[in-house]
Amino acid sequence: MRNLDENTITEAVLARHAQATDERLKHIVTSLVKHLHAFAREVNLTESEWEAGIRFLTEVGHITDEHRQEFILLSDTLGLSMLVTALAHRKPAGCTEATVFGPFFVDNAPPYNNGDDVANGAPGEPCFVSGAVRGPNGEAVSGARIEVWQADAKGLYDVQYNDTGTHRARGVLHSLPDGRYHFRSIVAEPYPIPHDGPVGRMLDALGRHPWRPAHLHFMITAPGYERLVTHVFREGDRYLDSDAVFGVRSSLIAQWHRHPAGTAPDGTAMATPYSTLEFDFVLNRST
Amino acid sequence: MRNLDENTITEAVLARHAQATDERLKHIVTSLVKHLHAFAREVNLTESEWEAGIRFLTEVGHITDEHRQEFILLSDTLGLSMLVTALAHRKPAGCTEATVFGPFFVDNAPPYNNGDDVANGAPGEPCFVSGAVRGPNGEAVSGARIEVWQADAKGLYDVQYNDTGTHRARGVLHSLPDGRYHFRSIVAEPYPIPHDGPVGRMLDALGRHPWRPAHLHFMITAPGYERLVTHVFREGDRYLDSDAVFGVRSSLIAQWHRHPAGTAPDGTAMATPYSTLEFDFVLNRST
Repeated sequence: MRNLDENTITEAVLARHAQATDERLKHIVTSLVKHLHAFAREVNLTESEWEAGIRFLTEVGHITDEHRQEFILLSDTLGLSMLVTALAHRKPAGCTEATVFGPFFVDNAPPYNNGDDVANGAPGEPCFVSGAVRGPNGEAVSGARIEVWQADAKGLYDVQYNDTGTHRARGVLHSLPDGRYHFRSIVAEPYPIPHDGPVGRMLDALGRHPWRPAHLHFMITAPGYERLVTHVFREGDRYLDSDAVFGVRSSLIAQWHRHPAGTAPDGTAMATPYSTLEFDFVLNRST
Repeated sequence: MRNLDENTITEAVLARHAQATDERLKHIVTSLVKHLHAFAREVNLTESEWEAGIRFLTEVGHITDEHRQEFILLSDTLGLSMLVTALAHRKPAGCTEATVFGPFFVDNAPPYNNGDDVANGAPGEPCFVSGAVRGPNGEAVSGARIEVWQADAKGLYDVQYNDTGTHRARGVLHSLPDGRYHFRSIVAEPYPIPHDGPVGRMLDALGRHPWRPAHLHFMITAPGYERLVTHVFREGDRYLDSDAVFGVRSSLIAQWHRHPAGTAPDGTAMATPYSTLEFDFVLNRST
């Protein structure tokens, strides 16, 4: 312990954790220290690079508050969030795949009935969304709690406006006895993740753009089934192959169909063009 | 890019950096992403563990301010700081080894002459420190800038008190024409690193104590020589084999000699017991 050098220090740090009583924590920290040290040795990290890293993390910490989570953005843009999602949700074939949660979920989204307009004034072309929630054997899942949230035509979520008390393009409804659901909203548009902070500078320095392809967020829960957190992505979006947070899975891409003014699927007389989207979710059984 | 899973996502993230023009940054981020992902896969990191990690880093960021650098503490306690120091300062045999910089250095430490008392009122038993600064061939280094800083008898640095404008047990002097230096200060004592924050909780959870063995910090610079940042540790300290930040190297341990009241080495009449420490520094030539 008195003659540590760049090769012996890793074992010395791990030996210090011999007394840890939480075996899982010990396992995680052991792996973390090994990989952190291997990284520093592999790139021969200099003292000024280490200082730059400390400054970067400090800035990430200081810009993070109750409205902005820059550490999640960092994890998202380095692919860690999607990796953790993929590890946690290895789904049987046929079940809807999961993707990243993202930083724009909020508690207490307003309740809606099927057929309601969850846009609640959010700007965007009208979109009628419908589909079904089913189990792995094709059984209808009745009363599934469906929470949806999305960006508006400006590429912003309601929480990114100043009047953060008002929920728009965000709500909770429940599937009908036959498993079906339908609601009105607006057409999702692509948007850049917040990129005026240290993570934005990192993307810049790496020659990366901050854009996410257009998508609707869904979180669906029902007794007896695994919670599903996922997106439905819009076919044709130019960022489908370069999502800044690596969330796209091909099974989650769907077609938004555009229609001229006329009668919408739910009977509403539409004086302007509108879109429709149909997407079915297949939940995995909980274990 | 549309079918990422836990095995393919790493290559997808690395491919995204193909346009990066800073080759060194690209090399560092490539290694970082590989090791970060390998860590998550190796421990099968769960979503709730990932959330706990995000919360931990957020707390580290929020407790960090101009007086406290919790990210450096985190790096120190995981052995990363000492690893980076060791990588950067592979010294030829005979040269004084480097160790961690630590978080208690401040700019604008007061200037002193040889023989002055740098304690400036800091509580502690008097200690007379002397030695020489030499080059690798034994040549005296005249006019070397020697900055020293240390904790007091309470285990605190001056910057940890409320009157942070007053420097105590901290100062700058220069070696004499024969390379020698001498000053008066106080006996260094062991101290715990700040452990009332997230890093302290981490150490607790890992069954680790936060203590550092007693030491003096030195930073020595001279034209034609590599800057030396190091400590001199006190022989016999109970924490020499378990330094919370892994900074001890056996070549940096020295004997503090205690003396009864009498005449100090510099001729001062001491009415109370005092200590002496002799330590020579050997600088590496700069390249």
